[in-house]
Amino acid sequence: MQILLTVAYDGTNYAGWQRQENAVAVQEIVENTLAELLGCPVVVRAASRTDAGVHALGQRVAFFADGLKVPLDKLPVVLSGMLPADISVLAAQVVADDFNPRFNPVAKTYAYRIHSAPCPNPLLLRYAAHVPQELNLAKMQKAAQAFVGRHDFAAFCAAGSSAKTTVREVYSCQVDFADDVYTLTIRGNAFLYNMVRIVAGTVVYAGLGKVDDVPGIIASLDRAQAGKTMPPQGLTLLRVEY
Amino acid sequence: MQILLTVAYDGTNYAGWQRQENAVAVQEIVENTLAELLGCPVVVRAASRTDAGVHALGQRVAFFADGLKVPLDKLPVVLSGMLPADISVLAAQVVADDFNPRFNPVAKTYAYRIHSAPCPNPLLLRYAAHVPQELNLAKMQKAAQAFVGRHDFAAFCAAGSSAKTTVREVYSCQVDFADDVYTLTIRGNAFLYNMVRIVAGTVVYAGLGKVDDVPGIIASLDRAQAGKTMPPQGLTLLRVEY
Repeated sequence: MQILLTVAYDGTNYAGWQRQENAVAVQEIVENTLAELLGCPVVVRAASRTDAGVHALGQRVAFFADGLKVPLDKLPVVLSGMLPADISVLAAQVVADDFNPRFNPVAKTYAYRIHSAPCPNPLLLRYAAHVPQELNLAKMQKAAQAFVGRHDFAAFCAAGSSAKTTVREVYSCQVDFADDVYTLTIRGNAFLYNMVRIVAGTVVYAGLGKVDDVPGIIASLDRAQAGKTMPPQGLTLLRVEY
Repeated sequence: MQILLTVAYDGTNYAGWQRQENAVAVQEIVENTLAELLGCPVVVRAASRTDAGVHALGQRVAFFADGLKVPLDKLPVVLSGMLPADISVLAAQVVADDFNPRFNPVAKTYAYRIHSAPCPNPLLLRYAAHVPQELNLAKMQKAAQAFVGRHDFAAFCAAGSSAKTTVREVYSCQVDFADDVYTLTIRGNAFLYNMVRIVAGTVVYAGLGKVDDVPGIIASLDRAQAGKTMPPQGLTLLRVEY
């Protein structure tokens, strides 16, 4: 029986999702906790390999379990109680054995939060990037809109990506503003390495008046034309849809 | 010349506002930073002695400075840059030499945040209390409303308070709900030791159906009738008005 979990975590203290040799990753903690529950080694597969410092509210994690002793509807509370406080299981469901959480998503949604004020706000520090300059909301919204559609996003991909193609489809991309915080919400079929953080950096450049022609930047296929890669703490994986 | 700062901090890693012998308090960090800037020892006075783990967005802190070399309007950015990331100075103004930030406030406003869901949300953990049960918003709002007015709040004061009188006036007290989070916002002339956290605990008991008659609890003057003291991380000092 394969089980699909919805997992939330504060990525601040982790080297990202994926298990690593010399640093603690969220995957390792989740696998160890499931192994403790099931009494045998467990390997999980996740929808998204979030980077170091990136947060998740709706990461999806699948594993095979035979003879699960905990009722499925109690699994989130039981696992959340076993996990450290910065990782939590929000939901659990049974999926087909051939289901792969990484390859089946129809859409993923990320939020990138930007706090714009002269001085940083300590209560936003873990979950938003701080930009001391003033930003223009209308220019940011116009820039965000230009990402929507099927494009070659080569200009928005960090070096070191192993993707076979840099074509991706963005279903929606918008910027909202409340309480000094700009929230970029982007939904697409898949994202390149660091793509959301580079899109966010480009939207910030638009807000600063440093960038105007996002369609031209996309068409250039040139990473140097896009904005800088924003820091990880502003990014949260909100939702994965199957 | 006396200067009044507006200070924000994440209280998670501090033993509260007030300087202590064997633990690091926010006051000590702010005083050391001001001493470094001014080149002489500095003693500050604050509007509120927030407890260990309690946050602030609008703490007010006054100190005397002769020959300040930094222009007043640059002071917040300069001090924020010298302070650790979990403490920030948001504003600075000159006040009269006889101004005392502790005794002059006309009102203080606190927010207490409660996350209600079966499993905790790691991204809310530092800034909200988690209540796994369902809460009734209408009952919480009715309970909150009952605190408004001038009352003897002896039932809402922790043991160990040195207050001469337990009479306080609450100007407003309301509960809002958004994204699984109930926010209690309370504004009053002054608050007793742990009063906001006990009010929050009583409002949670109302939401659970454990408490119905808040006016009766106030009239009892009996701490045992009120709800439990909620944990510090849900509490934020929002604003101090002079």
